[in-house]
Amino acid sequence: MAELSVTPTAIDGLLVVQLDVRADNRGWFKENWQRAKMVGLGLPDFAPVQNNVSFNTKAGATRGIHAEPWDKLVSVLHGRIFGAWVDLRPGDGFGRVVTLELGADTAVFVPRGVGNAFQTLTDETVYSYLVNDHWSLAAKDSYTFCNLADETLAIEWPIPLAQAELSEADKNHPPLSAVVPMSPPRR
Amino acid sequence: MAELSVTPTAIDGLLVVQLDVRADNRGWFKENWQRAKMVGLGLPDFAPVQNNVSFNTKAGATRGIHAEPWDKLVSVLHGRIFGAWVDLRPGDGFGRVVTLELGADTAVFVPRGVGNAFQTLTDETVYSYLVNDHWSLAAKDSYTFCNLADETLAIEWPIPLAQAELSEADKNHPPLSAVVPMSPPRR
Ligand SMILES: Cc1cn([C@H]2C[C@H](O)[C@@H](COP(=O)(O)OP(=O)(O)O[C@H]3O[C@H](CO)[C@@H](O)[C@H](O)[C@H]3O)O2)c(=O)[nH]c1=O
Ligand SMILES: Cc1cn([C@H]2C[C@H](O)[C@@H](COP(=O)(O)OP(=O)(O)O[C@H]3O[C@H](CO)[C@@H](O)[C@H](O)[C@H]3O)O2)c(=O)[nH]c1=O
Repeated sequence: MAELSVTPTAIDGLLVVQLDVRADNRGWFKENWQRAKMVGLGLPDFAPVQNNVSFNTKAGATRGIHAEPWDKLVSVLHGRIFGAWVDLRPGDGFGRVVTLELGADTAVFVPRGVGNAFQTLTDETVYSYLVNDHWSLAAKDSYTFCNLADETLAIEWPIPLAQAELSEADKNHPPLSAVVPMSPPRR
Repeated sequence: MAELSVTPTAIDGLLVVQLDVRADNRGWFKENWQRAKMVGLGLPDFAPVQNNVSFNTKAGATRGIHAEPWDKLVSVLHGRIFGAWVDLRPGDGFGRVVTLELGADTAVFVPRGVGNAFQTLTDETVYSYLVNDHWSLAAKDSYTFCNLADETLAIEWPIPLAQAELSEADKNHPPLSAVVPMSPPRR
């Protein structure tokens, strides 16, 4: 059990949220998102309209790098992940990387235009996130993608990508040098 | 993969949501809550402000029966549960019970004043829910509780309560006959 806190990172607007996880005889309980308390600590009042969950069967499942036109609050509900975030917005920060291992006690707020990726470190990993716009196949056209294996980013994936489970789409994203910086819509 | 649908139950306002779970080489993905699509199918536009998660270490963890002064959308992200809901609002429906087994492909919308309870059928069960008001210790005074073992309700728990893991509080709730029907605040 730790106190709830919200901490900035090297990427502008990317925030690490330390959650208060309470253990008891049944297991544990956490407030995974609590609008009033978290806004009080500096989380944007981002007004989610969708909650997505991905289940990852094996350690080594790797998803990304996706920068989307909406904000996300991501967290892990079972297992552990290695998360990587890349600033893909125009400006000085373009290409900046933050990595972090996440278990159930940490969430990350990912502002629109920051690329999101993760690799599962455990089997049966549950990854959940809240977003403040509705996804659609058409909205996917406004994503900005970057390759997980990009040599400039040089993300040290705990499980080499050659052994990792990826989608076909994620194998074929462009290198950073070919990425057009994303100017996400203002809210 | 099934189509998203929202179905009424014997308890007024208690809705079963069939989720569209999409499997692939990495595992599966689901929209656990999608405001626009679900409101279009009859889910109230309930405007959540908090997302809670409970982790339940062993099969047999049992929580409830809690009727709260806010609405909830509950779902299971890992494992399976036996869920039980009891109408504790004043009127003809008082004491009516609905039970249902839930895996990752089903969510349940629980309107304020309907008692919520569940028992895990698997080890390491992750239970997640969205609520449209902020919890506080003080708000707990406005819960209405009923005993899981109540003989009138006669809920057939898959794992007998004597072998189940309960909180001290949940062992001591009143029988239905002693419950004052709950008139939850309007929104
Ligand atoms: C994002 C999203 C996807 N889908 C559908 C489309 C596909 O049938 C299936 C999986 O979608 P994919 O595009 O492969 O999702 P994935 O590669 O996991 O990436 C998404 O999900 C990841 C978490 O799993 C996020 O970290 C990414 O930012 C997000 O883009 O779910 C939805 O039905 N709704 C959605 O919101
Ligand atoms: C509901 C809630 C609880 N808590 C704290 C209080 C305790 O330290 C710990 C566990 O709370 P309890 O009151 O024992 O929670 P529990 O018996 O599991 O019941 C709650 O959580 C259940 C799911 O686990 C729900 O189905 C119930 O409706 C809800 O009342 O979490 C929070 O910090 N925030 C909350 O929103």
